Amino acid sequence: MATRATPCLSRFNPHFTQNVIDAMGPKTGPRTRQVLGCLIKHVHDFAREVELTTDEWMMGVRFLNAVGQISDAKRNEGQRISDVLGLESLVDEIEHKLATETDEIPTSSTILGPFWSPNAPFRDNGDSIIMSPHKGQVSLMRGRVMDFVTKKPVAGAVVDIWQASSNGKYDFQDPENQVDNNLRGKFRTDGEGLYSLYCLHPTPYSLPTDGPAGVLLNLMDRHPMRPAHIHLMVGHDNYKPVTNQIFPKDDPYLESDTVFAVKDDLVVDFHPLEGDQNAKLGLEYDILLVPRD
Amino acid sequence: MATRATPCLSRFNPHFTQNVIDAMGPKTGPRTRQVLGCLIKHVHDFAREVELTTDEWMMGVRFLNAVGQISDAKRNEGQRISDVLGLESLVDEIEHKLATETDEIPTSSTILGPFWSPNAPFRDNGDSIIMSPHKGQVSLMRGRVMDFVTKKPVAGAVVDIWQASSNGKYDFQDPENQVDNNLRGKFRTDGEGLYSLYCLHPTPYSLPTDGPAGVLLNLMDRHPMRPAHIHLMVGHDNYKPVTNQIFPKDDPYLESDTVFAVKDDLVVDFHPLEGDQNAKLGLEYDILLVPRD
Repeated sequence: MATRATPCLSRFNPHFTQNVIDAMGPKTGPRTRQVLGCLIKHVHDFAREVELTTDEWMMGVRFLNAVGQISDAKRNEGQRISDVLGLESLVDEIEHKLATETDEIPTSSTILGPFWSPNAPFRDNGDSIIMSPHKGQVSLMRGRVMDFVTKKPVAGAVVDIWQASSNGKYDFQDPENQVDNNLRGKFRTDGEGLYSLYCLHPTPYSLPTDGPAGVLLNLMDRHPMRPAHIHLMVGHDNYKPVTNQIFPKDDPYLESDTVFAVKDDLVVDFHPLEGDQNAKLGLEYDILLVPRD
Repeated sequence: MATRATPCLSRFNPHFTQNVIDAMGPKTGPRTRQVLGCLIKHVHDFAREVELTTDEWMMGVRFLNAVGQISDAKRNEGQRISDVLGLESLVDEIEHKLATETDEIPTSSTILGPFWSPNAPFRDNGDSIIMSPHKGQVSLMRGRVMDFVTKKPVAGAVVDIWQASSNGKYDFQDPENQVDNNLRGKFRTDGEGLYSLYCLHPTPYSLPTDGPAGVLLNLMDRHPMRPAHIHLMVGHDNYKPVTNQIFPKDDPYLESDTVFAVKDDLVVDFHPLEGDQNAKLGLEYDILLVPRD
């Protein structure tokens, strides 16, 4: 049976998009040409498929400008919009496609999010990252970093941990209640690949909804909640870095994370802890690292 | 012959995009669902097709934020980015698809651009819109507004005209050289549908390249030039409005307009004018309006 052109596309100039793509000059590198050419194609196909009106396009232009206007050194609304549309999570999947194509899956990477800080201090194993008052439950988190291939411990790996406080805010969003680097810390694994620290059982929280991301979520009739999570970034010179979020298994937003970052192997189980005067809960979490070539 | 899935797409979670689209709640209206669903699909397909890396995605996020950060009441960088990618011109084509589907084509609409002003004053036919010093050639522009169907004159139509000065700048970009509403004016057609005014033979100019649009044009190895043009917006209560740009036929940038707004029937011919002490050039330009319903 012969195929035919989609009727809704055929009424428009069939050469327009290729003309725009072909306007790129000879000094454009091949990767830039590929990425921007594909972007132009999809932007145009989107507009033709929905027959975008001038009013809708202008609404989009105003939205685009508003994203940057509310952003500053402490607020990245562009990243948030990208997250709400699932793009950061998808890019994460793309970057780690090789890992997902193997039978054995190393610890999943997931989105970095806008709350990582380059300034988190090194702390000793067994230290607490809790520096300010809170209403959460203190937990002892510990585990082993291992080589994905050999399953041997990786000594000297850096486990960078960050989390929101029990009010759902990170330190730099909440300077009146939290000191700098509250609930942040870097831990170096010992000779057995072990790390350990005290942190909070995490709390679900809402993305800020006073900007374009809130407008977009409202348009889509979606809640702004992220399931409770702890962020980890694990690195070692000889291994590919892993950026993770881990989620308590009983969180009500696991199935509807507003940034689509939950993966099955990132759901963890906090258990009651006995015999530790500092913590009521315990969490064991091991991390597998893939060697660099 | 059986079709098969594109290999480069099959390695990714085939349900992810539909899950993001299906996250929209029941209160999302059908048009919003259609537009945002299609947008999500194309954004995701783009990322998968080029296998967008985290670094490239983050470059895009920074670019997105920069667009709004340089925009203000007098600068709409979001619209400019959209123009450089051909989107405004495409949306214009979509809105006017019905006109292009008829055999007889009424005066083409084209992009409004960011330089229209709601404050342009009414002037009398035969007046000049030139209020400030310039280095251009004064031209007498005149024509008739007619009904597309009956070809009869349309009396009382408003012809709103705006153009850049000979330095390539519009009045509000150039307050040190131009008074407010220099090279802007609204003219009402007389009983014969006629309008007339003195304006400048237009000059090609560059889009501002000190912001994200300049970055994007540089990446694409494209020049930032627009062919010389005069903007028109023609309206009448009984007719569909037309927004136009007209271009001198000898302009060097007709084939490579950086916002892709040139259409064949918008290319016009300025001719030497004799017997008018105010102008050296003449331009006749008629406009056909489509009746409402």
